[in-house]
Amino acid sequence: MTAADTAVRRRILAAAVDLFAEHGYDATSVSQVINRAGVAKGGFYHHFRSKDDLLYAVYGDLIGRQLEGMERILAQRLPPAQTLRALIMDLVETTAGSAREALVFSRELAQLGNRRIVQMRSQRRRYHNAVIKLVDDAQGRGQFSSVASPETVAFTIFGVVNEIPRWYRPAGRVRPEQIGTEIADLVLAGLSTGEAGS
Amino acid sequence: MTAADTAVRRRILAAAVDLFAEHGYDATSVSQVINRAGVAKGGFYHHFRSKDDLLYAVYGDLIGRQLEGMERILAQRLPPAQTLRALIMDLVETTAGSAREALVFSRELAQLGNRRIVQMRSQRRRYHNAVIKLVDDAQGRGQFSSVASPETVAFTIFGVVNEIPRWYRPAGRVRPEQIGTEIADLVLAGLSTGEAGS
Repeated sequence: MTAADTAVRRRILAAAVDLFAEHGYDATSVSQVINRAGVAKGGFYHHFRSKDDLLYAVYGDLIGRQLEGMERILAQRLPPAQTLRALIMDLVETTAGSAREALVFSRELAQLGNRRIVQMRSQRRRYHNAVIKLVDDAQGRGQFSSVASPETVAFTIFGVVNEIPRWYRPAGRVRPEQIGTEIADLVLAGLSTGEAGS
Repeated sequence: MTAADTAVRRRILAAAVDLFAEHGYDATSVSQVINRAGVAKGGFYHHFRSKDDLLYAVYGDLIGRQLEGMERILAQRLPPAQTLRALIMDLVETTAGSAREALVFSRELAQLGNRRIVQMRSQRRRYHNAVIKLVDDAQGRGQFSSVASPETVAFTIFGVVNEIPRWYRPAGRVRPEQIGTEIADLVLAGLSTGEAGS
């Protein structure tokens, strides 16, 4: 994608998020999105085939960035506590950075076609499974305490991250970095074996 | 409410949850709910004034039971770790017990009238604030570690509880009691000061 292409795509998505947030997905038409974004009709259809496509991209772009972040972090092969902390920080920062998109998407999720829902779930599951494997391996090697199953640890992390769009305000006092640090500290204290360096 | 009244109310709510789950809130009419429940029209309007009322009750009943549980647990004035464990156990068991209701509600939340949304949020906030106060007091007295702010602890607990309806299956292998125990163990290990009896 050229830089101009990326800019057009971003403008269309920003306009769609605004309109979905203001009027809901149902009451928003593709022409309204095109008008609000100030792009040509051809420009829109170069990037998206339908309104469904647009709703998926609102959230799919966030998941895509998160999966890229996950791969980048896992490739560093750090000790499990550092890996888990880096994953939590990245999840919190990307989610807070796209809080409005995530909120609009979660409200309109039921509107998404079945194929898209399956696709989105499988992407989420990929991240989920990576966290489960990380915790499972570290528990198996005695680096994490077995206080809770890997599944429960994963649900705890994604649970608190998934709530962020409901309360996080970009202009507020609490910065994403602090939120991420606190969540990582709490979870890692919970998984600590009480041994230094674990 | 008489026992017969309670039974009618329950039958209406069960029918509404079925229909909302199958066809969505929009596509469901009050007459369909009345037919499915097999109750008289007068019986319906004795309990509910509108479809909005019904959607609210699907979830409001769960929150109501949870707030009662909270009051009951707080009244026991146990040490903070035992109180937090009891709250988590009760939240997990009641949420798992009404997983279908909670899922339908979260999907259709946007359909609820504004007054109802405000009412529901204020009930949720009451529980949230009680957890924040409990953690804050215990951190202030050195009974809990200050690894994370009381707000982050509360968001972590409600985050993982709120995810339960998305994956919990009543017929599945994992029992609510085990889920609750694992979450409580993880959170309390995270908040532990490392001293026995804290």
